[in-house]
This record gives sequence, structure tokens and C-alpha cells, in this order.
Amino acid sequence: MNFAMEHTSRITHPLESLLNPRSIAVVGASSNPNKQGYRYVQHLLNFGFEGKIYPVNHRGGNILGLEVYPSISAIPEPVDYVISAIPAEHVPQLVRDCAHKGVKLLQLYTAQLGETGIPERKQLEVHIADLAHRLGIRLLGPNCMGVYRPEIGLTFRFSSAKASGDVAFISQSAGHAAEVMYRGALRGLNFSQIVSYGNAVDINETELLEYLAHDPNTKIIAAYIEGVRSRDFPRVLKIAAEHKPVIILKVGRTQAGARAVASHTGSLVGDYVVWKGLMKQCRAIPVESIEELIDTAVAFAKLPQPKGRNVGVIGSGGGGSILAADEFELHGLHVPSLPKQVSNKIKTFLDDDRMIVGNPVDVSMIIPGGWGFEELKRISKTIASHPLYQILVGDAGEWRPDTPSEISDYQAMVSMFLEVRESTKKPMAIVLRPADHTEEWRWRCFVEQQQRCLSKGVAIFPSVGQTARALGKFVSYHLASSA
Amino acid sequence: MNFAMEHTSRITHPLESLLNPRSIAVVGASSNPNKQGYRYVQHLLNFGFEGKIYPVNHRGGNILGLEVYPSISAIPEPVDYVISAIPAEHVPQLVRDCAHKGVKLLQLYTAQLGETGIPERKQLEVHIADLAHRLGIRLLGPNCMGVYRPEIGLTFRFSSAKASGDVAFISQSAGHAAEVMYRGALRGLNFSQIVSYGNAVDINETELLEYLAHDPNTKIIAAYIEGVRSRDFPRVLKIAAEHKPVIILKVGRTQAGARAVASHTGSLVGDYVVWKGLMKQCRAIPVESIEELIDTAVAFAKLPQPKGRNVGVIGSGGGGSILAADEFELHGLHVPSLPKQVSNKIKTFLDDDRMIVGNPVDVSMIIPGGWGFEELKRISKTIASHPLYQILVGDAGEWRPDTPSEISDYQAMVSMFLEVRESTKKPMAIVLRPADHTEEWRWRCFVEQQQRCLSKGVAIFPSVGQTARALGKFVSYHLASSA
Repeated sequence: MNFAMEHTSRITHPLESLLNPRSIAVVGASSNPNKQGYRYVQHLLNFGFEGKIYPVNHRGGNILGLEVYPSISAIPEPVDYVISAIPAEHVPQLVRDCAHKGVKLLQLYTAQLGETGIPERKQLEVHIADLAHRLGIRLLGPNCMGVYRPEIGLTFRFSSAKASGDVAFISQSAGHAAEVMYRGALRGLNFSQIVSYGNAVDINETELLEYLAHDPNTKIIAAYIEGVRSRDFPRVLKIAAEHKPVIILKVGRTQAGARAVASHTGSLVGDYVVWKGLMKQCRAIPVESIEELIDTAVAFAKLPQPKGRNVGVIGSGGGGSILAADEFELHGLHVPSLPKQVSNKIKTFLDDDRMIVGNPVDVSMIIPGGWGFEELKRISKTIASHPLYQILVGDAGEWRPDTPSEISDYQAMVSMFLEVRESTKKPMAIVLRPADHTEEWRWRCFVEQQQRCLSKGVAIFPSVGQTARALGKFVSYHLASSA
Repeated sequence: MNFAMEHTSRITHPLESLLNPRSIAVVGASSNPNKQGYRYVQHLLNFGFEGKIYPVNHRGGNILGLEVYPSISAIPEPVDYVISAIPAEHVPQLVRDCAHKGVKLLQLYTAQLGETGIPERKQLEVHIADLAHRLGIRLLGPNCMGVYRPEIGLTFRFSSAKASGDVAFISQSAGHAAEVMYRGALRGLNFSQIVSYGNAVDINETELLEYLAHDPNTKIIAAYIEGVRSRDFPRVLKIAAEHKPVIILKVGRTQAGARAVASHTGSLVGDYVVWKGLMKQCRAIPVESIEELIDTAVAFAKLPQPKGRNVGVIGSGGGGSILAADEFELHGLHVPSLPKQVSNKIKTFLDDDRMIVGNPVDVSMIIPGGWGFEELKRISKTIASHPLYQILVGDAGEWRPDTPSEISDYQAMVSMFLEVRESTKKPMAIVLRPADHTEEWRWRCFVEQQQRCLSKGVAIFPSVGQTARALGKFVSYHLASSA
């Protein structure tokens, strides 16, 4: 932990090369497609891992067209990275074989160790960790899925997104790692890496955080943490959060949660009150669910830095506008009225002076009232360009086509938002409800508009409440750091 | 407001017959399909309104095969219910025509009245209300969509659900009325009625609540309220909430929200702190978003009464289980460990005694570990049948098919949950993530499993957090009332 983070540009963190292997061996490779020992090989092949892939199984043979080696030592070329999918009792011998071969990193998908709570299994975990430490092998896990790193074609699951990005996620839970990868992709998040690190007997949250803090490809760090393994964590978190936004979902907030943590990764959760204090002191960003972690990452990944708390909202209907006003204010943002100058200008666009246009703009007043998207666009651009408003939100919330003939209206609504967004350098989020419709044509309409927004790099959110919660944290972070 | 709610079985509330018209006239009926005056006629025809439909427009002609009458008085038969889609300035004359014809209820889609904040418009609204009162016509609105009542084929929107149910929703916002109708249907909510009541110059939240409190077809009342119009509200709310669960989304919690309310329905929001006290005192159920309103209504509509706070959770992965434990406990439920007796019994089902089964059950420990759904079903049923657990949750949260070949696994997971649910009389919720996938096969798989659950009357929720929030309120309500 003495790595000098302050001189990040010149020094390479030890994890950098470990997570960039040129060759990978999968030990416990299987020809049974339902076994993880098959899937690791399959994923690396499908995802196009750039280096060599060596399946290892004492039975030999072929898996997916690759020769299977009977042991690590039988592989003719150097091996950087080994994935273990064998039972825990065989891992000590594997560690020795890896040391002999000059392997640098051993990732243990292997579980049934410390997390079982069984004394002999805990002892075996400690023995494996000690042995690896003594023999100079770094361990990732046990009880973890490993690394997703699209840049080099490394992954641990089906249909992983190919695009690299600047968000990193580290997770003690493999399920959450896969969930953030999948649901993040639906929201346009691209990752530099996702690391599932399980029981963390060697490489832990602190070392990963230290590495990511100065990884030039990572601009935003997100983490799912069950228990902290290193006393250095507060110091490293403080430095990391000074460099980049660090979004953390910490679980075990309740007794039942703490008990579930113990049987998952064998971690000690610590006191949540102390944790909250630490987060605040370090200016890290706490979140309370996977959904909120993704929402918050979307805000940081997609939006330019905000200059203040004043939101201009192009709302949905009247009720939707009110909920938006309440939600944004309750999350620490402001929804100021239109200045007289703006109202007056807007009145010149409308041929009925009884129309009320406020902030939020109640779109239902304009569209069905006989005017249309052109008027709404002029209104929205007027608000967007006024210096009072520092953040913009377009809410297509309660709008949906009722019949296929209305699809073009929905498209026009999204086009209008996109055009307003392109007219300004201010951060602008768009609220598009989830594409969870039961009718195919409506589902398709929503998916198409979401994809269209994502292809332009827009921050989209599934509800006003989620938008407000994420933007509240995003804006507070930036205003505190510029203060 | 002197209607004797205490003798509900014998006396019919005045709104009962008003909301059950045998004939409806649409004034301002139009042949332009984009106008609301066309759509009202279209909706009534499509939805199969049981009574007569009379389009009214001074131009005459035909709309959708129906003869258009030049005026209300020209209609040869009695008219119970009139929908006004004409400009506000013509409404006073319409009120007189309605009085002459013996119309009982005039629903004003017509807007641009009190909500504009313009003095002349406010005066016009007051004038209309006074005139109607004097002439014995009841008003719904202005600035509202009206009534959805599937039992008689009355609706105000496209593709309304045909099935009647026992949930009623009253809403000052037409957008929220449509949203709850649409999104409620996606969650299997069936309605006795949904009433969009807008500016509430005559029929207001209090009268509607009073009516619904003793409507035998309504078991659950939900309301979206911007401002309360009657001083009787606290008294009526108290009585209503003694009879049925009353779920209320009250907006205008912030200054910006209050301002948006004023320009939407011209309501005064009141003090939210006072409001919260009233809700608590009356044992009404406050919610803070449309999503939460729907979730809470789903819990009350679909689940039998719980006997206590102890939840048995068949969790998703390890991380998902921990989040579930935290969420349920943070929302006032308990997630107690498995009693020794249960653990011991479960061990007899498993051929590896290192397997940890707790509460929540970490399903990922069982399925990929070489066992399968049969073992999981036996484990789940053992937990479900133990008297310690009073509520059950099956969380398919982070499970999804990675390839089409895994669809059958997802189906098997849902089947397992359904079988456990059928084995018990305890309330059991199932968490199924939204069907918002971009690939058609996966979207279809989710929609099919959701529909399958809905067809069996299951309470499904899109996330663990939303489940916990809704169940927390549901359980607290029932335990307080049985205390």
C-alpha cells in the first residue's frame, strides 16, 4: 500500500499488468456446457480474447477446438493468468504448479471456502492465501467470477458488451457484477473493467481502488462492498475520491444483512454509521441499491459538469410536472420559476395568451392544445439558453403511443429533446420510461427511441424519481468540489 | 357531506347513479381524429359502452357511424351524463341546456379556467360552478378526463383494460389517471373505477372518497391529490380508512411543487407536515410516487392478510440476498435466520453438507452447484411451511437467460416459485425484473413469465427495493389494525 498514487503518470500499478494477461489457462476446463469450466473457455473464445487460451484438465482431449493440457506445467508457453474452476481441496497444489510455471495471477472461481463458516474450510482458505503469498502468486477471489476487460477481450459471461469505456466497477458479488454489466449496457454505460473479487483473501477493495484511482482509462469508479479487508481503506478512498468520483454501495446495513454477508463472502460489515461518516469525510458517493448505482454512474459518465443547482424541466403532463418539481427540490436541486423576460418571450411564440408556461413546462398544455412540437422546441430552447438554468431535464415520462399511428409523435417528442440538448452545453438528462410493454410494437418503439438516445451519448433515466436522486448527488458532488 | 356512511349497506350514495349513466352525450364531438371530441366517442364505442352515445356538434353530420345532434335539446331521449369538449366560454350555455334536458352530471374536459390564474378565467369557473349548483347539475372537473368504469364500458382512453376489479383510483391529474390505468394493468391491477377529477369545483376528493368508502365493488382506494377542497376531508378520510386501505399520493411537498400545483388545477397544497400528521392519525397510507402507489396497491390487491413481520426470502444470488435482507429490515420487516430444526431438515435434502442455506436462501449456491430446482423447491417449501415465517418472497431478481437455450431454466425458476406459493396460504410476492430488454427473445421470455404470474393473481414487483417498500406498508397497516 505504499504505491505512490501522487505520481500516477509515470508509475504503473502492479495490478495493471496482472489484469492485462497475454495468456490465460482455465484449470478445470470441462466439455460439459453447463459447467463453468466450459463457459470460461467459451466466453474467452466468443469475446475474442487477444492472447492464448489454454484449457487444462487431467483428462486431456479438446474443448471448443482447443487442445486440453493435462496440467499447467504441460503448457509449452508462458501463462500469465490462471482461472481455477476446480474444487477447493486441489487449489494448494494448483498454487504450487502456478508458482513453478511463473504464473502471476490466479483467479479462484473455486468457492466453498471461508464463506461457509466451517472451521476447516476457513483454514484451507488461509492456507491457500499464505502459500500463494509465500510463492509470489497474487490471488483474485476465491468465490468470484473474475475480470471483464473489453479492451483485451477478457470476460466471464455471455454477450458482454464489446465497447470499452471509462467506468470501472468492482464487486464482491458476482451476481451484481453481471447485473451492472448487463443493466449498465442497457443504459449505455461502457466499462474499462469490471472486477468480481469475492472473498478478497489477497487482492481486495483497497488495492483495486488504489489501482483504479490512477488507471488512465477509468474516469468513474463504482464499487459494491460487503466488508473492508484493509486498514488502509480510508486513506486510499480519500485519495481516490480526490481524483475521481467514487460511487459505493455498501451492504450489511442491518443485522439480517450482516448475517447474509457473513455467509456470502465471509466478510465483517463494520458499523454503518461509521461507514457513512467515512464516506462523507472522503467525499465518496453512497448509493443504496444496484439501480441507484447505475443511475448515478450514468449521470457522471454522460453529463458535462454542472455549474449550479437550477434545473429547467420540460415536463410531461401537469401531474408529472408537479411530481418532477417536488422530486428535484427534495433531492437538493432548485426548480426556479421562469424569469419575466423568459415568460414574455415565450408568449410571443403562442397564439393564446391564456396558455400557462412555467418551470416545469407542462407539455400537455402545448401539444394537444393545437400547437405542436415546433412551439415546444422554441419554448424549450429559450429556457435552455437562459443563464438561470444550469441543468436541463426532458421528461417524456407519461407519454406513450396509444396506437401504432402515434409512434411518430413519440419519435417527434424525443427528436425535440435531442435537438434542445444539442443546442446547449449544459448537462441535459432525458427521462424515458422502461421499454417493458407487453405489446411488441410499443416495446419496439421504446427500445428504438432509447437506442437512439444512447447512440448520441444521452443520459437516460427510467423515472423522474431516479433522475432526481442521481442528479442530486451528481450536482452536489461537483458543486462541493468547485467550492 | 351529511351522507350517513355508517349505514352503507342500505343507502346508495348520490355519486353511485351519477357514475352509472345509461346515456352519454359528447358535446364538441369532432370528426377530426386528433381532437378529444372525436376520441371520447371513439373510446366509448371501442370499449363497448352499454348505454346510448350521442355526439353533439352544431354542424351535425355523422361521427363513427353515429348521428350527430346539433344540441343537447335535439336529442330525442333522456341524457344522464354529458362530456364537454367545447371552449370554456360556451360552458355556461351548456349548463343551462343540460338543466333543461334533465342531465345529472356534466364532465368538463374543458380547461383554461381557474388553473390559468387569470382573474377573468377564475371568475368564469366560479360562474359555471354557481350556475350548475343553482340548476341542480353536478360537475366533474373542469380540466379532467372523466371516468373509467369497465363494468359499464365507460372510459376516456385507448385500449383500456376490460376487466373490472376492486381497486379505485381518483386523480386530480389526467396524466396520472392514464398512467395508473396503463401501468396498473401491466401489474395485474383491475379497477372498479378511475376518476380524473381535475380542478374539482364541485365533485371533489372528499365526496369521491366518501362514495368509494362504501362502494361494495371497491376494496382498495388510491388517490392522487394536489389540494384538498373540503373541510370535511379529515373526517371522511378517517371513516374511509377505517373501512378500507386508503393509499394517497399528495404532491406540492416543496415550494416548486406547490407552484406547479397552482398552475395545474389551481389548488392550494396546504402544509405537508400537517398533511403527514393527518395521514398518520387517520391510518391512511402515504406514498411518494406513482410507482410506489401502484406497488402498494398491488400488495393490498393481491396478497392475503399477513400474520406478522417475518419474511422468508428465496433470494437470487449472494449479493441479491444481502440487498434483500437489508431492504426488508430497513422497511420494518424481519428476516429471521432459519431455526435449527429447519436447517437440519434442509441438510437432509442436500448431498453436500458444506452448502450454506440461510434466510434469504442464496439460490446461486444451489442451482449451479450441481443440484437443481427440485432441491430448491423442497428447501423453499420447508421454509414456507414453518410457522416462524409469515410472509414469503421469491426473488428471481438477477436471474435472466443469457441465451435462448436458458429460457427453460428461467421458466423452471418461476414454476418453482409458483408451486411454493400454491403450497401455502401465506402472502407470497415474486420479484421479476421489468421486461425492458433490447433483444426480442429475452423480452418475450420475461413478458411470458410475467403474464403467467399475473394470470394466477400473483403480486409481482420489479425490484427488491420496491417490494420491501410496499410490503413494509402493507404489513404495518394490517398489524396496526389487528392490534
